[in-house]
Amino acid sequence: MQNDRVKLEDPQTPYLALDPAIVTANVERLRARLDRLGVALRPHVKTAKSLDVARLVQDEPGPVTVSTLAEAEAFAAAGYRDIVYAVGIAPGKLGRVAALRERGADLVVLLDSVEQAAAVAARGLPALIEVDCDGHRGGLRADDPALLEVARALRDGGGEVRGVLTHAGESYFADGDDALREAAEQERRHAVRAAEVLRADGHPAPVVSVGSTPTAHFAADLTGVTEVRAGNFVFFDLVMAGIGVCTTADLALSVVVTVIGHRPDKGWILTDGGWMATSRDRGTARQRVDQGYGLVAGPDGVPHEDLLMSDASQEHGILSMRPGSARPLPDIPVGARLRILPNHACATAAQHDHYHVVGGGVWERIRGW
Amino acid sequence: MQNDRVKLEDPQTPYLALDPAIVTANVERLRARLDRLGVALRPHVKTAKSLDVARLVQDEPGPVTVSTLAEAEAFAAAGYRDIVYAVGIAPGKLGRVAALRERGADLVVLLDSVEQAAAVAARGLPALIEVDCDGHRGGLRADDPALLEVARALRDGGGEVRGVLTHAGESYFADGDDALREAAEQERRHAVRAAEVLRADGHPAPVVSVGSTPTAHFAADLTGVTEVRAGNFVFFDLVMAGIGVCTTADLALSVVVTVIGHRPDKGWILTDGGWMATSRDRGTARQRVDQGYGLVAGPDGVPHEDLLMSDASQEHGILSMRPGSARPLPDIPVGARLRILPNHACATAAQHDHYHVVGGGVWERIRGW
Repeated sequence: MQNDRVKLEDPQTPYLALDPAIVTANVERLRARLDRLGVALRPHVKTAKSLDVARLVQDEPGPVTVSTLAEAEAFAAAGYRDIVYAVGIAPGKLGRVAALRERGADLVVLLDSVEQAAAVAARGLPALIEVDCDGHRGGLRADDPALLEVARALRDGGGEVRGVLTHAGESYFADGDDALREAAEQERRHAVRAAEVLRADGHPAPVVSVGSTPTAHFAADLTGVTEVRAGNFVFFDLVMAGIGVCTTADLALSVVVTVIGHRPDKGWILTDGGWMATSRDRGTARQRVDQGYGLVAGPDGVPHEDLLMSDASQEHGILSMRPGSARPLPDIPVGARLRILPNHACATAAQHDHYHVVGGGVWERIRGW
Repeated sequence: MQNDRVKLEDPQTPYLALDPAIVTANVERLRARLDRLGVALRPHVKTAKSLDVARLVQDEPGPVTVSTLAEAEAFAAAGYRDIVYAVGIAPGKLGRVAALRERGADLVVLLDSVEQAAAVAARGLPALIEVDCDGHRGGLRADDPALLEVARALRDGGGEVRGVLTHAGESYFADGDDALREAAEQERRHAVRAAEVLRADGHPAPVVSVGSTPTAHFAADLTGVTEVRAGNFVFFDLVMAGIGVCTTADLALSVVVTVIGHRPDKGWILTDGGWMATSRDRGTARQRVDQGYGLVAGPDGVPHEDLLMSDASQEHGILSMRPGSARPLPDIPVGARLRILPNHACATAAQHDHYHVVGGGVWERIRGW
């Protein structure tokens, strides 16, 4: 983050700062990778939930992934026509899905059960079948007989088997480059295999959709895959830095806070940024280096070595030195502003209604469901 | 929660349901306690952040505590005149404080340093001095010479020493009724003692403000205290139930979710409510009984014995049986609705823009800072 483009004095703290130059660099890096691998990018807009950020990813409306129908509705209203809703569909939501399709959006839902397939088929809608590549969440294995049962229920009931979708959620806990490359290959292999099973049974299944930010950055070969989904990469965060997908210099988001007090007896600096501003996400607690509620940087974006946001109440942050650090607590006066680099960009951004853009401007976030 | 007043079918999931009858019962219980103790209630509106919920606490605008200036501004606009902003003041926020006072609100700020006192005094504003009663966060001890230094800086610079404020934040981790009673007495003792030190030095210090939901419900004597602050009690949550301040039947909030899938091989039920709907707060992880991301209840509000929301991603919840439970996973079909009873009401409510009121109606939350 360049100091001369930062206007940290403007909004009152705490607030969410976004550096668009870093977003652009992160996007270019992933695009270049995927171009080399010959695969399309379908960005997941769940991290930024912002039409303005989406414009930094695509020059004009292209394929996107959404996590809520509220996102689908906002993107469709802005001209996006190619949308995958990548959460298993609740049958009660199909009315909104159908309404969006009637307004011209090719909105495709996700499912992994005969019950869902029957409900989707009854409305004549297209769906992707969720494939489980690593036991992380939902989905079916390529060798599970249920895969064909679901596909047949969808097709025979009047729906469309658009293809398969998988997400290597366990890659967030992968340790080391080899593990990440293997997670990416496993994601590819399971998805391609499931599509082959479907095609052998007579389903066209043109779409083979894979993705997570870690696997997107480590995949060595994506043969058979038609698109990669990734969301977090626009902002990155300390969890991604801990995995080795980025460095802390690639983090586009920070929460700007103000020092409101000191407890020298405890080695604490108190700020006006608590979990309401950072979220309760402690993703790095499961990693080799626990970053507390975040690394603390100066207004110029340069981290104070070993200074962490170590605890949080609703509107208070506690900063202290990393356990075991030999460095002294820096002397930062009441009223000074600091940046907190977040564990998990998706969760931290969700605590805010808008982004304060470095260099000027305020960008709204899409909220609710 | 009464089944006949629940209209769970109305909004699309996930959404935040609020039972006003439970709020009213919770309020009456605390009011009766404080009446017996002869002390005024200054509810903390940070939990609900709602003018509608505040009307269930007070028939007409009375004294309130706020955690943000956004709350202060919203409550002042609705006719509330007696407001304490209970987060140590950042000098850069004093312009907004002064503007609110000029519009007629008696908004009082909090501080614990000479730097803050000088900034507040320069504008001729009143402040409470923060007292530390348990080492939880900020504040000064009654026997710390800094207490009088701060009071003198405030008075001599042209400000007003309105009194003292303390918060027994450690009471959230108290174990057992005796520990809670002792936390309440400790909170009282430190606050009263600090006020006495100030008065002996010639400061009027009429206000002695204490409070947390646990100590408010366990204080046996509040001699010398002029007001009690508590916020969480309007809704309660699993952390409070774990401490023993309430039972799960007293929980006024729940997140309504829909089943979207099953993983029998893992013993999982998947829902459309992830951490975006519940928050990442895992407050019960530090208690004797870890409730995961929440207890799972049916639409009637009755918990499924031993069924927990055990994991969460952004828009997915994973439900499974409590580790060690001998009960089978209940058979709950795709499309069924469930309620998640939250760890921490303040954090869960913060994930939502409004409350869906049992019996009808939508109440807005105040957002931002």
